[in-house]
Order: sequence, then C-alpha cells, then structure tokens
Amino acid sequence: MQESIYNIKCVIEYDGSRYAGFQVQPNEITIESELLRVLNLICKEEIKIYGSGRTDRGVHAKGQVFNFFTHNHIPLDRFMYAFNRQLPLDIRVLSMEYVDLNFHARFSAVKKEYRYYLKQIPLNAFEHNYMAFSKKLDLNLVQNALKLLEGRHNFEGFCSVDVDKRKDFEKEIYEASVKETNDILEFKFIGSGFLKYQIRRMMALIIAIGLKEEKLETITKILETRDPFVYTKVADPSGLYLMHVYY
Amino acid sequence: MQESIYNIKCVIEYDGSRYAGFQVQPNEITIESELLRVLNLICKEEIKIYGSGRTDRGVHAKGQVFNFFTHNHIPLDRFMYAFNRQLPLDIRVLSMEYVDLNFHARFSAVKKEYRYYLKQIPLNAFEHNYMAFSKKLDLNLVQNALKLLEGRHNFEGFCSVDVDKRKDFEKEIYEASVKETNDILEFKFIGSGFLKYQIRRMMALIIAIGLKEEKLETITKILETRDPFVYTKVADPSGLYLMHVYY
Repeated sequence: MQESIYNIKCVIEYDGSRYAGFQVQPNEITIESELLRVLNLICKEEIKIYGSGRTDRGVHAKGQVFNFFTHNHIPLDRFMYAFNRQLPLDIRVLSMEYVDLNFHARFSAVKKEYRYYLKQIPLNAFEHNYMAFSKKLDLNLVQNALKLLEGRHNFEGFCSVDVDKRKDFEKEIYEASVKETNDILEFKFIGSGFLKYQIRRMMALIIAIGLKEEKLETITKILETRDPFVYTKVADPSGLYLMHVYY
Repeated sequence: MQESIYNIKCVIEYDGSRYAGFQVQPNEITIESELLRVLNLICKEEIKIYGSGRTDRGVHAKGQVFNFFTHNHIPLDRFMYAFNRQLPLDIRVLSMEYVDLNFHARFSAVKKEYRYYLKQIPLNAFEHNYMAFSKKLDLNLVQNALKLLEGRHNFEGFCSVDVDKRKDFEKEIYEASVKETNDILEFKFIGSGFLKYQIRRMMALIIAIGLKEEKLETITKILETRDPFVYTKVADPSGLYLMHVYY
C-alpha cells in the first residue's frame, strides 16, 4: 500500500510585537514555533514548515504564506477551525488550500509586497508597536529616493552583512512608492524578492534623505559599490508589514 | 524657612495590554509602578500617586488622571518631556498642570466617561488586545438594556463581591448608549462614578441580553435586590477604555 502525502498552502497574518521573528530560534517564541506546536498536535506527526521568507523580530504580516506536507487528509474548513482555536490570538490563519506537491512557499513565489508605516508626529500609547516615528520628511526627496531604488539592481549593499556571499543579490523592485495621509507616510514596496534587512536598511536611508541628513547620491553609491558598510542603519521593525506573496 | 509643596495634576493614556492594571501590586508591573519609578527619579524624593480610580488588568485609558505632591518646582514642559522620555512607550503623559493643594484626582472627580468596543465578527491578529468579540447582538434589546441602567441606582448587584460592604453603592449613570459602525458596537457610559467591575459586569449582561441568553428583567432584578450573585459574568477587559475624568 502506497502512503499518501498532501501539500497544504496557508496564508496567515500576525502581530509580530511579541515574537522573535518568523523563524524557529532556540529559547525564543517565534511565529514558526507556535505554528509547529499546533500543527504537530493536529496532524499527530512531525511537521516541517516552508515559509515564503523570514520576517524579523517585531515585524508584522497580513499575508505571510507557508506550506507543509502531511499524511493526514483533514477537511480544510475543520483543519483551519482547529488551527485558529489553538494558535495565540495574535496569529490568525486566513486561508488553507491543497496544492500541487511541487508548490514551495519560497521557491514558487514570484513577487512580494511590503508596506512600511511612518508617523511624522509622536506616536500615541497604542501605536508604538505598529508604526515607526520620524520628524517631518521632505516628500520630494523621499520620492526621488524611491525612484532610484526601483528597477533591477544588485542590492548587496542594502543586505545584512551576515548573509552568505554566494547568494544572488540581484533583485527587481517593480514599485517603490509613498502615500501621505494626515501625518502618516505609507510606503509600498513590490519586488521579485527582498534580502535580509533590505527594506529596513532602505527605509533608514530614505528617512535620512528625507531629513536631509544624507544625500540622494548615497543610494547610487550603495547600488554601484554593493558595499553594505556605506550606510548601516536599520529602520524600526514596528512599521514593517509583509502584505502579500504572489505565486 | 517654610518648605514649599506643589500639587501636580497629570492626564495620561496607556495601552493596558502588558500591565496588571493601574494600581501597584506586589511582583507585578502596573501603570502606577511605572509612573512611580520615573517620578521618584525625576523628583529625587518618594512620591505618592492619587489616581482617579483603578483600571483592571488589560483595560486601557485615553484620559486617566492622577495627582501627586512634590517639593520640587520644575517647569512643567521640561518635566513632561523627561517623564515621557523615561516612561515605557505604551504609557504617555498628555498634560501636566499645577493645581490647588485641595485637588484630589479621585475625590474631586464629578463625572467619568468609559467606552467599550465590541466587534461582532472575529477579531484579526491586531485587534484582540483592543476590543472584545461577540456574535451579532439584537441592537434593540441592547438599547433597552442600556435605558434600564441609566439614572440613579444602587449598583451593588453589579459590583465585585470583594468590595467593602460599607461602601456607598449609589451612583448615577447619565448616559449609557451604543453606536454601531460596520461590525463594531461602541458603548458609551458617562456616570458620577463606577464601582469595581461594574462596567464589565453590566457589559457581560448586556451582551447576554443581546444574544437572547438573558432577559431584560435580570437588570431590574439586580438593581432591586442589589444581589451581586444574580449574574456574575465579567466581560473581557480588552474592550474597555477610560476616556475622560471630569472635575
């Protein structure tokens, strides 16, 4: 008798405030460790999760995707109900579907969307985990900075220095835009993929440019030299949301 | 030489999610313990705080008031800046003013406003600390329940049973209303004062009436018998906000 195996794709959202990021880490509570704890219980077998990518400590998601394989064939409405009942309330499963055995949440992804929320007046007591703060930015300079980042580039200079140097650092940003509503700037980044810390490093520099502490040319210099030591600041994780992974 | 003493009134807001309520408690982090830690540092003397009233674990405030006495005469703009710099980001001081030595945040208060937020569809990952959930309520029944609670009553039957029985349980509710926006019910309670657990006990019963699990007459019975064992459920603290204290 041949054993059946099923591949399940899940879309989840989470409030990252309480978690040490997505990926399992020793002695830390992470999104993945919570997902695994519940999946192992429901499936009564050792589950392995394939995430579309990591998110850092304190970063949020409204459309993170992962897949996992199981020998159980449980109706997905019942599965999702049990999953949400046993997960912490700040992690919610939004959808589950059976997918082809070839589907892989990371390797099958073709595009990702992130947003970053930046408030230009002091945050109130309820906002500090959910957006970042800076003084008022020059919106024109910010828009010019975003334009320089769009397109296909080698983004090694915006990547965390602890990443394996054999990695492919060439990525394409299809859209890098900003919308101002009252005192809040909403940044949108749509790209073929993003490197570790890339968005938070780009955001730190965009903010510095908007505050006239750095020049637009710093972006060109980082893209040309690919040197991750030109500008090393990393923006606050609380403003960052993984919105959508496209397949 | 006579020593000077000053009375300072503070208005604060806080996200109560992380705290074991307002009042100092052994081995717990509370709003008051954080305020005292910072005030003792700034004033370099042992400070005592007089709050307008306690809030329970997980309850929020957008307009909590307290006063304290100090021998220091620090310009209040500088004081408030230092205060906010050293407080956790989920507690913010909104205003500070020198007041008459007779002012007492609790005894001088004449009116208080609370709001309670109840969502009638499941909460997302970002909402569960900030509102309560229930299935869809019958709004007509809810409004009739609120009408029964308005006016001057002895509210002992809605008060926590661990309260000193010599207390004055007679209070007046000037307004108990509800407004529906999309799937969220916003309840407003304005009264001369509220007893321990009173709003959460009233809310639990209002929700049960709206779900047709309890009858309107239960309210009348509790107000008449003053018996706190008629209905003992207490609604989720996450939906409750102290909005304003009037003097």
